Amino acid sequence: MLRPGSTIGILGGGQLARMLASAGARLGLRAHVFSPAADDPAFEVCAARTIAPFEDEAALAAFAAAVDVVTYEFENVPSDTAAFLEAHSVVRPNPRVLALTQDRFTEKNFVRGLGIETAPFENVEDAAMLAEAAASLGRPSILKTRRFGYDGKGQTLLREGVDLAAAFQSLGGAPCVLEGFVPFSREVSVVAARGSDGAFRAYDVCENVHERHILALTVAPARISAQTAAAAVEMARKIAEAADYVGVIAVELFVVEEAGGERLVVNEIAPRVHNSGHWTLDGAVTSQFEQHMRAVAGWPLGSTRRHGVRVEMRNLIGDDAEKWPELLAEEGACLHLYGKKETRAGRKMGHVTRVFP
Amino acid sequence: MLRPGSTIGILGGGQLARMLASAGARLGLRAHVFSPAADDPAFEVCAARTIAPFEDEAALAAFAAAVDVVTYEFENVPSDTAAFLEAHSVVRPNPRVLALTQDRFTEKNFVRGLGIETAPFENVEDAAMLAEAAASLGRPSILKTRRFGYDGKGQTLLREGVDLAAAFQSLGGAPCVLEGFVPFSREVSVVAARGSDGAFRAYDVCENVHERHILALTVAPARISAQTAAAAVEMARKIAEAADYVGVIAVELFVVEEAGGERLVVNEIAPRVHNSGHWTLDGAVTSQFEQHMRAVAGWPLGSTRRHGVRVEMRNLIGDDAEKWPELLAEEGACLHLYGKKETRAGRKMGHVTRVFP
Repeated sequence: MLRPGSTIGILGGGQLARMLASAGARLGLRAHVFSPAADDPAFEVCAARTIAPFEDEAALAAFAAAVDVVTYEFENVPSDTAAFLEAHSVVRPNPRVLALTQDRFTEKNFVRGLGIETAPFENVEDAAMLAEAAASLGRPSILKTRRFGYDGKGQTLLREGVDLAAAFQSLGGAPCVLEGFVPFSREVSVVAARGSDGAFRAYDVCENVHERHILALTVAPARISAQTAAAAVEMARKIAEAADYVGVIAVELFVVEEAGGERLVVNEIAPRVHNSGHWTLDGAVTSQFEQHMRAVAGWPLGSTRRHGVRVEMRNLIGDDAEKWPELLAEEGACLHLYGKKETRAGRKMGHVTRVFP
Repeated sequence: MLRPGSTIGILGGGQLARMLASAGARLGLRAHVFSPAADDPAFEVCAARTIAPFEDEAALAAFAAAVDVVTYEFENVPSDTAAFLEAHSVVRPNPRVLALTQDRFTEKNFVRGLGIETAPFENVEDAAMLAEAAASLGRPSILKTRRFGYDGKGQTLLREGVDLAAAFQSLGGAPCVLEGFVPFSREVSVVAARGSDGAFRAYDVCENVHERHILALTVAPARISAQTAAAAVEMARKIAEAADYVGVIAVELFVVEEAGGERLVVNEIAPRVHNSGHWTLDGAVTSQFEQHMRAVAGWPLGSTRRHGVRVEMRNLIGDDAEKWPELLAEEGACLHLYGKKETRAGRKMGHVTRVFP
């Protein structure tokens, strides 16, 4: 258990790191942010900073020596960086989960190995394998690169008639998985945390609406049965336990309505605080950011109790952030802006939460 | 109206500045903290920093040039500093309120001039004036220095038999006021904000318990009638309007129970965010810190709606902060630690809030 005044090292300097650093400061924890990008938003709220490439071993060694524990805001931490830091410090969550979640094929096999359903999937390493997979899984299906995809990047929809070889080449010829179609009625996520003592706590399962492959809206709680919600939380617990996880984890699931009830299909695991947990900043006793800092500090997890009967979070993407004057003036709306210097289409600039009493 | 990405200059680097800076960051506002003390807690969460004495005009000029508006976390900003900054930037709240609140005698006359009751008081500049004042106000009464008193510092109780000349000398012979005894049943405060557009919003009136002259506990809402609460808010509004105030203001009041109801007596005005408003960090839609940043940025004020049926805030003074492990483990408790490097008796090290649903 770290003492207050200890320093949490954070790899990455985006909005998640920024909100982690601020949440740590509330608890008397110092944040040391490591990122290659000098104008990253987290640098404006942290006690110490390293601006260096993730491959700079001298900078990594100095960083490891200056912090009490290392965590990260994104799953694409290079594996050499993670291995180097693990040799010089404590890294939480443990980097094995990075290897798991950086590769969709590995991740899906891991989830399936726990007896949890995923979308049907096939490994695709060339056009011939894609033809075979498409024949087996049918269409529509989705071809996704195994690595480095997010917010709809690195994926393409295979409808009837789409040329398979061209589709494969459109993703750069990188190793892929083909995912079969899941006729889901809703997307939900479990944002939860596991402490270093093995304690596990989940927030209310929340419901997510994506627009153009980017999260647009989260509503907590999700409109699913209590039984389905409990089952989703159990899946997240199983995954966290199997990965010997410490920190906040997010599990995205599809809900498929069937005669007799709702079936859950795991879509993706994020080994970090997650956009669909931003509602907890204003809508829960402990925010996901504080929860993560508590976990990586070896501290007890906080209460995940929700405020109000319903909480909504809307992302402000690109020009949406220009609505800040009306959002500031809206009764009960809580505006969050990430301090990004440049607005770009598709870029997450902020979000707004609304707690309904 | 400043744009997001603007810089708010904050004079002072203590916990109030720290929480102001963090609240601003949520809104995409940068904080530039100016303080003479290099290890002040606010320096760990701000985008820019100046470590210099408040009398350093070169540093003040550079600071004024680097920020879009100046605010402060404490009322004892030297008047020359305030005047210099006002000549080079916009200062909010306007520094005339500093002159008002730095001197108990001036403040009480101002309040009384608005038709609002204060404790009976007399100006005391020497032992003879004290003898006269004590004869007029009776005992027990409290002798307070006109300037620089806080948390019970700079004051002494005059009971029957206390030697008046010695009492006056014990406060250094500085100009004082003698305050008559107020037989109050509770202490309450109004934490409110006035926007640059004149809008005024108050949080629920809260009730304060002091121990050894330091705030120990705040409970919102106060156990007073709705009518008394409304009257207290109206006093705060009157004070804020008369001072052409912009920002968060706190008004401390005594509640005196009388046949026929409750009477309100203003004790003190704080031209800043206030310890008795810390409960709003977890217990209200908009924290007092965000509210202050909104006001000084020229933005609309946020909702002051309370979460839960009751919110409590307890200060962690000196060694109290050593209870952090049990507070972290307590269900529903929200721990705040200020990151102060040294624990001292009587020093505010953090606080804990509890929202009762």
